[in-house]
Amino acid sequence: MVNGQISAATDSAAQPGRFGERIIELAHRLAQWSELPEGLMCTYFSPAHKAVAAQLRDWMGAAGLRAGIDAVGNVVGRYPSDDASAKTLIVGSHYDTVADAGHFDGRLGILTGLVVAEHLHRTGRRLPFHLEVIGFSEEEGVRFAAPYLGSGAIAGRFDDSVLARRDGDDVSLATVLRKEGVDLAAIQALARRPQTLRGYLEVHIEQGPVLLQRGLPVGIVTSISGSARYRVTVSGVAGHSGTVPMSLRRDAAAAAAEVVLAVERRCRAGPNLVGTVGQLTVPHGLINVIPGSCELSLDIRSIDDATRSAATDDIFAAIEEIAGRRRVTASIREVTRHRAAPCAPAMQAAWAQAITRAGIEPFYLPSGAGHDAEMFAGVTAMGMLFVRCGNGGVSHSPLETVTADDADIAARILLDVIVNLTA
Amino acid sequence: MVNGQISAATDSAAQPGRFGERIIELAHRLAQWSELPEGLMCTYFSPAHKAVAAQLRDWMGAAGLRAGIDAVGNVVGRYPSDDASAKTLIVGSHYDTVADAGHFDGRLGILTGLVVAEHLHRTGRRLPFHLEVIGFSEEEGVRFAAPYLGSGAIAGRFDDSVLARRDGDDVSLATVLRKEGVDLAAIQALARRPQTLRGYLEVHIEQGPVLLQRGLPVGIVTSISGSARYRVTVSGVAGHSGTVPMSLRRDAAAAAAEVVLAVERRCRAGPNLVGTVGQLTVPHGLINVIPGSCELSLDIRSIDDATRSAATDDIFAAIEEIAGRRRVTASIREVTRHRAAPCAPAMQAAWAQAITRAGIEPFYLPSGAGHDAEMFAGVTAMGMLFVRCGNGGVSHSPLETVTADDADIAARILLDVIVNLTA
Repeated sequence: MVNGQISAATDSAAQPGRFGERIIELAHRLAQWSELPEGLMCTYFSPAHKAVAAQLRDWMGAAGLRAGIDAVGNVVGRYPSDDASAKTLIVGSHYDTVADAGHFDGRLGILTGLVVAEHLHRTGRRLPFHLEVIGFSEEEGVRFAAPYLGSGAIAGRFDDSVLARRDGDDVSLATVLRKEGVDLAAIQALARRPQTLRGYLEVHIEQGPVLLQRGLPVGIVTSISGSARYRVTVSGVAGHSGTVPMSLRRDAAAAAAEVVLAVERRCRAGPNLVGTVGQLTVPHGLINVIPGSCELSLDIRSIDDATRSAATDDIFAAIEEIAGRRRVTASIREVTRHRAAPCAPAMQAAWAQAITRAGIEPFYLPSGAGHDAEMFAGVTAMGMLFVRCGNGGVSHSPLETVTADDADIAARILLDVIVNLTA
Repeated sequence: MVNGQISAATDSAAQPGRFGERIIELAHRLAQWSELPEGLMCTYFSPAHKAVAAQLRDWMGAAGLRAGIDAVGNVVGRYPSDDASAKTLIVGSHYDTVADAGHFDGRLGILTGLVVAEHLHRTGRRLPFHLEVIGFSEEEGVRFAAPYLGSGAIAGRFDDSVLARRDGDDVSLATVLRKEGVDLAAIQALARRPQTLRGYLEVHIEQGPVLLQRGLPVGIVTSISGSARYRVTVSGVAGHSGTVPMSLRRDAAAAAAEVVLAVERRCRAGPNLVGTVGQLTVPHGLINVIPGSCELSLDIRSIDDATRSAATDDIFAAIEEIAGRRRVTASIREVTRHRAAPCAPAMQAAWAQAITRAGIEPFYLPSGAGHDAEMFAGVTAMGMLFVRCGNGGVSHSPLETVTADDADIAARILLDVIVNLTA
């Protein structure tokens, strides 16, 4: 891609009506860089990741922003206010992806911010705050099992202990960053002081079916669910599949199967609760060996921390009961735990006003997935807008879709919120 | 190990009372060759496997047998009758192992045959039939998912279609054999004509807890269970673990968990029935993704083919019901199916007479595990003797044990059966 093409695309973007098609087109262009020969995968500081960062920086520069890439790989494009002492409104999302990802998870939010900022610049619209469009470098946590590296650094929540984490090739995060020429001390310096921030806004695909089923292009996020993740190892007794009578077995996989169903049963009891066993495996399982061990993951989420805690307690009790009855042992290790992150009421109201002005019914929904936005809860006024996800709401999949019309509506609403936001 | 040491060990074996310690010692010596740095693994034509074959051949030669290694890697030691036209009695078991195996599964039978044949040779005892002690090269089916390669060839049941099977490195069995210098046509030529055989005897550890619980050193096998093995793939719909409400999920792992428990429930209803899900995995599972697919294995066994068929039918119906109710699909592929293999009544009687002469109560039990012996059912008079398995009956595990006393009893009973067997 040459800059000339970008500029050509940029010109047509001065008309708000064309935001949507451009966002979709740019998202597809970004997907050309991948770690996979087929399908999209763009993990932290892979060659694809660095290429995407450079492209975003170039596009931000071409859009009239002061663009650069910071120490953790965030691409920051600044549209300064005339008032040098003004606060800063951040519009962001992430550009890293999961394996075999869709083109819009994260990137939709960056590109929506980009086209809106570009429109402000091209139309000469000045703001009473600095506007920064940020493409966060890391949200998914794929490479180092450490999510929110990019947004965490900006929000002042980067935990230096993650520098010791190692990727699948046993290379530490610290080693990767040093190899990229990063002064590790510079990461903590990326943190913004809360009093310098006007707020944080993020546009993101819903990654679920609710808006699709409601027939609405966008929805206002009320809160980002808290989540707790665990790894459970069930240990039983291996044995020959033909020689040990059923009554004498201590089958780790059968116990794990009961755990899977207990998680499902408890979380179906809701409300506002989901629980998932996404990983389930008999290590080195053989077709003719009774499983001596079985490993599973557990992911429990709710917008209400007390609901999540109660469900977790019940599930742990169920695991204990299952293990005791089956004479196996179960060990549970916590992987991560995040409290629920409520969106600022003022930002929810701002979205609602803009949505109403667009002739759309304001609809409120929680976010079951974590997002960069949760790093900013408690730091500054945080707001999130969900965009309808096609194909039944599938995400983290190449089947993930957003229509140009919906992207256009989201961009116009973001623009409306920004221009109506006071200093 | 040098031949001098073997000979030294060999000398003391002329006393029947010393069979047991020697068998245990030789089994531990064979375990020195392994594919694993820790623990025993010896799969078809691995370097460890070839080293064990060479050692067995040398030990057989030192024991006075005419020893060689055949086209499929069987180690054959022949103690000929004075009557060149006599039939042949085969005493055999296998020397390949599963991963992280015990030292006795298979090898106990070869070594018991070895020390008995050696005793016959040293004491000049002539037989009215040729005696062949065979270490079969392949019974477990680990490398090519094709069990009984060695005994199948001798029994005339080697199926050329298995030559196309590929190992974990995508190398075909045909390629491996050619690389070993094998003329593939020579494998079918290994088949013995049934009319040339006097019978087949196999000593094997029980691999279960029955003899241990009965307080008996040995038991007479009545029948080898028939088995059927399947691979089941459950396909649901992947989705984000935080955003898809429980009620909208089509979780492949939750469906698979129900299948695991359905197998267990049906096979507990017996009688003489076991069912095992030894392999269970969510391919590429992620902690925050609802499983879109889940794979599991199914192994169903009974000494009664009708019992097994009925259980299989019920389990398949349960899988269909679960899949339908959960709006997932399940595909079932048959991997192997073996009919139950009854042991020859005459051989059961021969074991019983020798056991009684040893002052032990004859006890009859089925074999839930498959064994090389089943290849000879319907080919010649087949008999199996089980030896008590320590540690609660655990097998396919480094915890597998056999005592020297029990091995000694088994060898003396085998010797008794052989010398009392008519032409």
